[in-house]
Amino acid sequence: MKIEIIAVGSELLTPFFQDTNSLYLTERLNDLGLDVSWKTVVGDDRQDLAISLRTALSRSDLLLVMGGLGPTEDDLTREVCAEVLGRKLVFDETVFLKIEERFRRRGRTMPASNTKQAFVIENADVLENQNGTAPGMWLTAGGVQVALLPGPPREIRPMFEEAVWPRLELLHKGAMVRQILKITGLTESDVESRISGLYPDQKKLRLTVLASPGQIELHLSAFTRSDSEEAERAVERLARDLRARLGDNVFSASGEDLETVVGRRLRTRKQTLATAESCSGGLLAERITKIPGSSEYYLEGFITYGDRAKNSRLGVSWDVLNTFGAVSSETAEAMAAGCREITGADYALAITGIAGPSGATLEKPVGLVYTALAREGGVEVQKNLFLGKREQVKFQSSQRGLDMLRRALLESEKAEPERNGG
Amino acid sequence: MKIEIIAVGSELLTPFFQDTNSLYLTERLNDLGLDVSWKTVVGDDRQDLAISLRTALSRSDLLLVMGGLGPTEDDLTREVCAEVLGRKLVFDETVFLKIEERFRRRGRTMPASNTKQAFVIENADVLENQNGTAPGMWLTAGGVQVALLPGPPREIRPMFEEAVWPRLELLHKGAMVRQILKITGLTESDVESRISGLYPDQKKLRLTVLASPGQIELHLSAFTRSDSEEAERAVERLARDLRARLGDNVFSASGEDLETVVGRRLRTRKQTLATAESCSGGLLAERITKIPGSSEYYLEGFITYGDRAKNSRLGVSWDVLNTFGAVSSETAEAMAAGCREITGADYALAITGIAGPSGATLEKPVGLVYTALAREGGVEVQKNLFLGKREQVKFQSSQRGLDMLRRALLESEKAEPERNGG
Repeated sequence: MKIEIIAVGSELLTPFFQDTNSLYLTERLNDLGLDVSWKTVVGDDRQDLAISLRTALSRSDLLLVMGGLGPTEDDLTREVCAEVLGRKLVFDETVFLKIEERFRRRGRTMPASNTKQAFVIENADVLENQNGTAPGMWLTAGGVQVALLPGPPREIRPMFEEAVWPRLELLHKGAMVRQILKITGLTESDVESRISGLYPDQKKLRLTVLASPGQIELHLSAFTRSDSEEAERAVERLARDLRARLGDNVFSASGEDLETVVGRRLRTRKQTLATAESCSGGLLAERITKIPGSSEYYLEGFITYGDRAKNSRLGVSWDVLNTFGAVSSETAEAMAAGCREITGADYALAITGIAGPSGATLEKPVGLVYTALAREGGVEVQKNLFLGKREQVKFQSSQRGLDMLRRALLESEKAEPERNGG
Repeated sequence: MKIEIIAVGSELLTPFFQDTNSLYLTERLNDLGLDVSWKTVVGDDRQDLAISLRTALSRSDLLLVMGGLGPTEDDLTREVCAEVLGRKLVFDETVFLKIEERFRRRGRTMPASNTKQAFVIENADVLENQNGTAPGMWLTAGGVQVALLPGPPREIRPMFEEAVWPRLELLHKGAMVRQILKITGLTESDVESRISGLYPDQKKLRLTVLASPGQIELHLSAFTRSDSEEAERAVERLARDLRARLGDNVFSASGEDLETVVGRRLRTRKQTLATAESCSGGLLAERITKIPGSSEYYLEGFITYGDRAKNSRLGVSWDVLNTFGAVSSETAEAMAAGCREITGADYALAITGIAGPSGATLEKPVGLVYTALAREGGVEVQKNLFLGKREQVKFQSSQRGLDMLRRALLESEKAEPERNGG
């Protein structure tokens, strides 16, 4: 089955907008075990749109068109599609009354321009729009299934779930089972060499590697036409084999972020965290506080950008700062220890380094970052050399800090298994 | 001139990847006054790709194809394009030697698979690739100009600038003049009603509004076929009229972020800043420290998530905290004043509020945020009610804080014009 998605809208042909709906549609189609063959973007232009529709009808079995169903003159999908199919647009009184009612409920009169939304292509099923005035349509033409859907995400999503998904399920029995493993602490080539030989050689089971600085994701998926348990088992087996090779570098097997994983463990253990950041400039705190409810375990943070702040807020001695410099193992250690002592947190993370582009010296290049974790019993420091631009260095610094904490939590859970709850 | 962009790669048909190259290509084509009519994404599939190329050749005058030029079996663009055009692939010794040399410089031997990258479509010009092994190609077929370009951004961009841009300039004389106004402190409908009547009615001059929580952008552009000065004047005139209506809510007329604008003013005035954040959780500091060189004016920051931290770090009295609560005008004021006093900064920004989804009470709903600015002479507090999810509330809080500072800097520059340098 060849599937094509067409996004209609001139704004999608500017440098400012992406068609993001198609990612959602693709994900849902994949859930049914269906792949997309083409994605096309076309503007609000009568002729260009007609050409796109004709092309799609000639090469695809299923065609999802989104956008261009609004009430303005620029909204042409309804009209052009009817024209290309050689069908009439028929006034649908039920649809008309629903649109009118929608305006009435808001105390407004329906503008005349909305009348055109009550015209439906001959022999098309109307798909109800709960969040807007534009109804969708579903029709069959020359063996091609065609869905016309509204462009706004809050309109297309419920319509897809309620009206398109059940029709696709009838057309096509099948499903996709998926799992995502997230990894940190290894480079992409480390991961590749560890998992070599595990790439599945069947088309029904897939493994995709997505690498970015500080984080690598393995996307596993299995397609099934009938037996979803078998597909689940295949994904499980592959995940188990991958995890055996990657060990505790895998921080999540369910697609969660590192800050979510660490946050849950802290919450379960009823332990607290504080942070002291220099070069990461608040990004570590920002990530931690992204998680709703983080106030349960996150006490506070310091952004000690200058030496004076490192000394007066965290008690890093001038002796350490002058002898070793702000970017040093000794300073990182003192920042973490000071932060823990002052705040009374169970764990304190500290980061100091050179995010760039300026600030580097011969001995201390851009990307040199010390991360430190203070906990009961002592302070651990790591020296890192991160590649990339300022923002990537900041991200990798925060990622390494969170990962040090994750590993420390894992370790103490292993040491005291009776407390293991996360 | 009809232009089509084709992005080749099966990963672009998954839910995980977007084709972002086309935004860059669109921007550069727009710079020449050229619009894109279609964007197509197709997978690494011989037949699907052939269909896409045939369709594009039949409907477009200029075709930019990106991706699929690599050395693996999945990379089919070169081959399939030759097949569709009915041309041979010819071994190009110069290209071969360059690829070999590239590997040698890195102390590696060229793998046999790379040999295929030395095959060039008959009668195509080779476009040199400075950052990879895949050369690009430029050819003409039945009146259609075709460029085959590599997929990785760091390869396609220099190749486009050096080899494609000059060819397009020869084909097409014209240019686009652009300006971006960035606005904060007004809602989208405020902006719309203030600028109504200013929308240009000519096709050559365009005005687009991009709104997101906390920031509205006006994109102005004028197309010119010859007289770029006239286009510049038209954009300038429109910008001037818009600014007259929007006043100092416009914080940048050159597309800069608020943190960049504020940072430059602080640097010029040699003044310093410190921050005290509760609900924004470090995002304000993170934005400020995104700017290279921010250590010149940003002294330090506190993330005082709990009451204890607000008291012990910033000196907010227990009396204030207990009487008015952590989310109150009084606490915001005390946070800013305390932060300024303790750090000795010229300006101190404080944020306290309820980012959600939990933490709300009957009197204090999600989105209630107090922002405060302390400076010589006193503390100013604003009460805000931001709409949206946790991250949007955090962003709007940081945006409002930065904007309070921007307005204060503007005001004092007006008061002492001799110091005005920013």
